[in-house]
Amino acid sequence: MAIFRNSSVMRTQVAIVGAGPAGLLLSHLLWLDGIDSVILENRSRDYVERRVRAGVCEDPTVKLLRDVGLAERLDREGLPHHGIVLRFDGEDHRIALTDLTGRTITVYGQQEIVKDLIAARLKAGAQIHFEVSDVEVHDVTGDRPRVTYKDSAGAVQEIQADVIAGCDGFHGVSRPSIPDSELTVYDHVYPFAWLGVLVKAPPANDELIYANHERGFALHSMRTPEVTRLYLQVDPSDSLDQWSDARIWDELHARFAIDGDFSLHEGPILERLLSPMRSFVVEPMRYGRLFLAGDSAHIVPPTGAKGMNLAVHDVLVLSRAFKELLQSGRTDLAESYSDTCLRRVWRAEHFSYFMTSMLHRAHDADPFQHRLQLSQLRYTASSTAAATSLAENYVGLPFP
Amino acid sequence: MAIFRNSSVMRTQVAIVGAGPAGLLLSHLLWLDGIDSVILENRSRDYVERRVRAGVCEDPTVKLLRDVGLAERLDREGLPHHGIVLRFDGEDHRIALTDLTGRTITVYGQQEIVKDLIAARLKAGAQIHFEVSDVEVHDVTGDRPRVTYKDSAGAVQEIQADVIAGCDGFHGVSRPSIPDSELTVYDHVYPFAWLGVLVKAPPANDELIYANHERGFALHSMRTPEVTRLYLQVDPSDSLDQWSDARIWDELHARFAIDGDFSLHEGPILERLLSPMRSFVVEPMRYGRLFLAGDSAHIVPPTGAKGMNLAVHDVLVLSRAFKELLQSGRTDLAESYSDTCLRRVWRAEHFSYFMTSMLHRAHDADPFQHRLQLSQLRYTASSTAAATSLAENYVGLPFP
Repeated sequence: MAIFRNSSVMRTQVAIVGAGPAGLLLSHLLWLDGIDSVILENRSRDYVERRVRAGVCEDPTVKLLRDVGLAERLDREGLPHHGIVLRFDGEDHRIALTDLTGRTITVYGQQEIVKDLIAARLKAGAQIHFEVSDVEVHDVTGDRPRVTYKDSAGAVQEIQADVIAGCDGFHGVSRPSIPDSELTVYDHVYPFAWLGVLVKAPPANDELIYANHERGFALHSMRTPEVTRLYLQVDPSDSLDQWSDARIWDELHARFAIDGDFSLHEGPILERLLSPMRSFVVEPMRYGRLFLAGDSAHIVPPTGAKGMNLAVHDVLVLSRAFKELLQSGRTDLAESYSDTCLRRVWRAEHFSYFMTSMLHRAHDADPFQHRLQLSQLRYTASSTAAATSLAENYVGLPFP
Repeated sequence: MAIFRNSSVMRTQVAIVGAGPAGLLLSHLLWLDGIDSVILENRSRDYVERRVRAGVCEDPTVKLLRDVGLAERLDREGLPHHGIVLRFDGEDHRIALTDLTGRTITVYGQQEIVKDLIAARLKAGAQIHFEVSDVEVHDVTGDRPRVTYKDSAGAVQEIQADVIAGCDGFHGVSRPSIPDSELTVYDHVYPFAWLGVLVKAPPANDELIYANHERGFALHSMRTPEVTRLYLQVDPSDSLDQWSDARIWDELHARFAIDGDFSLHEGPILERLLSPMRSFVVEPMRYGRLFLAGDSAHIVPPTGAKGMNLAVHDVLVLSRAFKELLQSGRTDLAESYSDTCLRRVWRAEHFSYFMTSMLHRAHDADPFQHRLQLSQLRYTASSTAAATSLAENYVGLPFP
């Protein structure tokens, strides 16, 4: 009897590894198409619902969420933004996103989307297995791939599926389960890190402020009308204990200083995080019946606010490929999945690189580079074409 | 008596060092305002009229030349272009300059402009002293600056002027005569050089082709309907004797290869030149009564075709400053001369850097950079905003 209690075999059409925005949204999209999936997540539900990450939703992301019935709270609580501010040379230069593109961005935390997705999935009776461990994918080059894991009680489980979606992020097991020889890795580490703080104080400005200052880049953002999100460019070798509250505020005030009236609103720091800045892409995003989506296949630096939005695009494309494959047996979209996604991935990598290079101060850069940066900022702020180019990337080029 | 034959003092309002496009055009513009100038040039008239350099005139350059009566032959013989081609991934992508900006560029060799300018200046009775040597500028921080030189016969001469214009290029004497402590130098050397050849054969395409190829950048341009101008990205340490005619043609054919019908027209190579690629700017472009213009103050890599056009802008701004200074004694425009010019100089430096980076293959670049390049090219070719941004810089942002 014990063997049956401790080890069981489940059958589903799509096994999804990871209950972040990618995995959850994929499961939802598949469900709308009548396709069954099971989600495995090694963290707890509480953990993933509190994990603070991205906060800017592209226009196509919001439209998709709305189209698939997931935007009720987003439409109520999300903050639509019609512009961003580039602050340099002591002055503000607004990029009028909506005037330039007809589209908007929406500030709404990734963890809020995760909460909405989990609620919707569970309401629809979906299987999400939290706090699993030892996840392994098997036989992905054959017709009957499997996933094994230990459930939260420690029992070994197996899922047999038609396909597997690796939505388990940069540190997940899906990508490393593909032989190195099958993947080409593109990796770029920037000489910057971001120190991000969540502050209990109203934002000092209605719109995001991207500040290029000789002391380094700083970003003023917000989570809600009562919670400000602030970032400082720091050295990648810095540790959090080098950054006292006083030092953080001094640096923030210095980098946001302007010729005119502006002051940050100080408040208790609720959370602080150091994140390195990296670009990372693997090609292709598929190996046999294992399909990678989101951070498991690519990482962007946060400057362009593209990470979660790329994941959303990936799973939209993937859901269509799975639908075609599982319902008609045709493989066209599955074959083109990787190329289709990688086009947008590289666009986002380039845009993020462009934003990062234009806004950060590299301490080893020669003065020539600073002058180029300043000319680029002035031009971007003064040319309709250049501002539109930034804006259309920022709000998100349309989904296919 | 000998002393008078061998050494004389001339008096003029503006002493101009250098009879390139900058010095000659400045002299012409000043003459239109009734201001007297004298030009010194260490080369012969024949040499400067044959010196092959830039070949692309921006729209504002052409309009200015037309406005000041210098475009009669340019309008007859110059080739107006309404687009350029970006060739990558085996395909052509046209940037429709005129459709995007309403403006055009004109292919007309710099030496043709020099011929037109010399003819116009001499017809108006201007003094251009060719084949001078030992030019030195003196007393530029006082009210009575002087230039001394030896004339073509070897006699020492002196010019007393109100102001001096240093239009004598990157290797001229004007910039080095300013104390190092007074100038900030910005210098950037690219890891590329261009091997340029002038070929007696009709161009293979009506428009310029900028090719990004894995073997390196190549440019197809033209001088006249019978003369093609071709460039290859080569290593800066290469010498001309490493490049036989056969090797040049092999490399050109390989880099211009395309999925479709295209073949370069071979012909005798009339001229070949290796040019390093460099960005160089000094700030400010003025020291006392010595004003630098054109290449004496700044160098751009040729990729953006901006060098001569910047010189034209400099002397337009300078002629206005001199007019104000010499006719009304006001110094406002003289004071702002450097800042006004440097705005456009840094725009051109950034644009040239952008074009150079997007189109050349750095042999030490990681594969990540190649992927970014490809995404940037695809985006530039497919987004109206991005294409317009390239186009408005290429045809030239309007003169003030």
